[in-house]
Amino acid sequence: MVIKVHGSPISTATFRVVAAVHEKELEYEFVPVDMKSGAHKHPDFLALNPFGQVPALEDGDIKLFESRAITKYLAYTYENKGTPLIYKEGKQMAELAVWMEVEAHQFDPVASKLAWELVYKKMFGMEADAAAVQEHETKLAKVLDVYEAQLSKCKYLAGDSFTLADLHHLPVMHYLMGTQAKKLFDERPHVSAWSKDILARPAWEKSIALQKQA
Amino acid sequence: MVIKVHGSPISTATFRVVAAVHEKELEYEFVPVDMKSGAHKHPDFLALNPFGQVPALEDGDIKLFESRAITKYLAYTYENKGTPLIYKEGKQMAELAVWMEVEAHQFDPVASKLAWELVYKKMFGMEADAAAVQEHETKLAKVLDVYEAQLSKCKYLAGDSFTLADLHHLPVMHYLMGTQAKKLFDERPHVSAWSKDILARPAWEKSIALQKQA
Ligand SMILES: N[C@@H](CCC(=O)N[C@@H](CS)C(=O)NCC(=O)O)C(=O)O
Ligand SMILES: N[C@@H](CCC(=O)N[C@@H](CS)C(=O)NCC(=O)O)C(=O)O
Repeated sequence: MVIKVHGSPISTATFRVVAAVHEKELEYEFVPVDMKSGAHKHPDFLALNPFGQVPALEDGDIKLFESRAITKYLAYTYENKGTPLIYKEGKQMAELAVWMEVEAHQFDPVASKLAWELVYKKMFGMEADAAAVQEHETKLAKVLDVYEAQLSKCKYLAGDSFTLADLHHLPVMHYLMGTQAKKLFDERPHVSAWSKDILARPAWEKSIALQKQA
Repeated sequence: MVIKVHGSPISTATFRVVAAVHEKELEYEFVPVDMKSGAHKHPDFLALNPFGQVPALEDGDIKLFESRAITKYLAYTYENKGTPLIYKEGKQMAELAVWMEVEAHQFDPVASKLAWELVYKKMFGMEADAAAVQEHETKLAKVLDVYEAQLSKCKYLAGDSFTLADLHHLPVMHYLMGTQAKKLFDERPHVSAWSKDILARPAWEKSIALQKQA
């Protein structure tokens, strides 16, 4: 039975999972959830994710939600397929855990608010709030200063291999690259090289192709 | 060399780590970071956590930050000591990953804002904002409805054993139990039993004793 990814083509959380599925070279079916009509709050979908948010995953009788739990599940379960995406031992595993938390607690809250102002509001015909943009750009710059220091020590956030710690950034970063916030990445040489490298991964390009289709 | 936990006695993130150290029955030294004087933004501390937040951990030459990365490190590294705290295989591991993400992305953002209004503002001589309290109580109630359903299926969030998915809730929940938000836990029978059970764990009682001392 083929893996099912339930989600929305404009959802960054969904695209974390889509990116991971492509990195692992897994066959899957994308099941669009029509968020405009509120399908994510319908009992059918709440049986997959009681919080009524996309994405959700079905793999045989395993049903999971929360994008970062799903990517971890895929990386551990399909260990021998595609890109490894994780370290499973000692100090490297600990570093990976740290930088996965950094994405979730330092990068994402700020970058997502910026994407809301600069990308989604436009999509929905709303005006960006200039003060909020300013505030979150300042905060994102501080986070990226820490990334610059880390990426001058190793090629990827958690070491010398591309892992989930990098991959989890892709969907929001991809959106920000089409906005004025791109400069925050470009101004920092190591961050700039890293962002170009990970956005150019074939698995990510295949993921975006799906987004464009939708 | 003994493990060092750098942190603050009023920091919930610090107490996630303190709780884990006690569950794993590890010897450790608590190194207080004087946040009032800004010690967490001093170069000495930034060498432990470049984001300038508590907690940070030192274990021999391993230096880590982000509370949930530290607890995971302790659970994997000291597998054979104290309480297991994790599942390492298959479906159980996947469920654990889901419920750890739920704590971090559904429970904590709401519960922490409520603790800010009802606990920390009082501590710092500020007034709670009634509208914010109302908003976050409504949101927390919805999260706890999902917990009630989950805890009617298994004793702990990720299955029949106490894991990091439960432990990570302790510090914020402990604070909320001293406020009007306690009713949100008490009103739901399975959530109520679960919260009483995990707050009464000897390892947590030892952790709070340290908080009271400070
Ligand atoms: N922490 C969740 C976040 C999921 C999330 O926020 N999904 C959004 C779309 S990107 C959604 O479904 N929003 C609708 C809602 O919250 O009602 C994850 O990583 O999966
Ligand atoms: N995601 C971090 C959060 C750490 C955090 O927010 N720590 C607070 C105290 S609970 C802090 O150091 N605040 C000071 C600051 O952010 O400048 C973790 O889990 O360790």
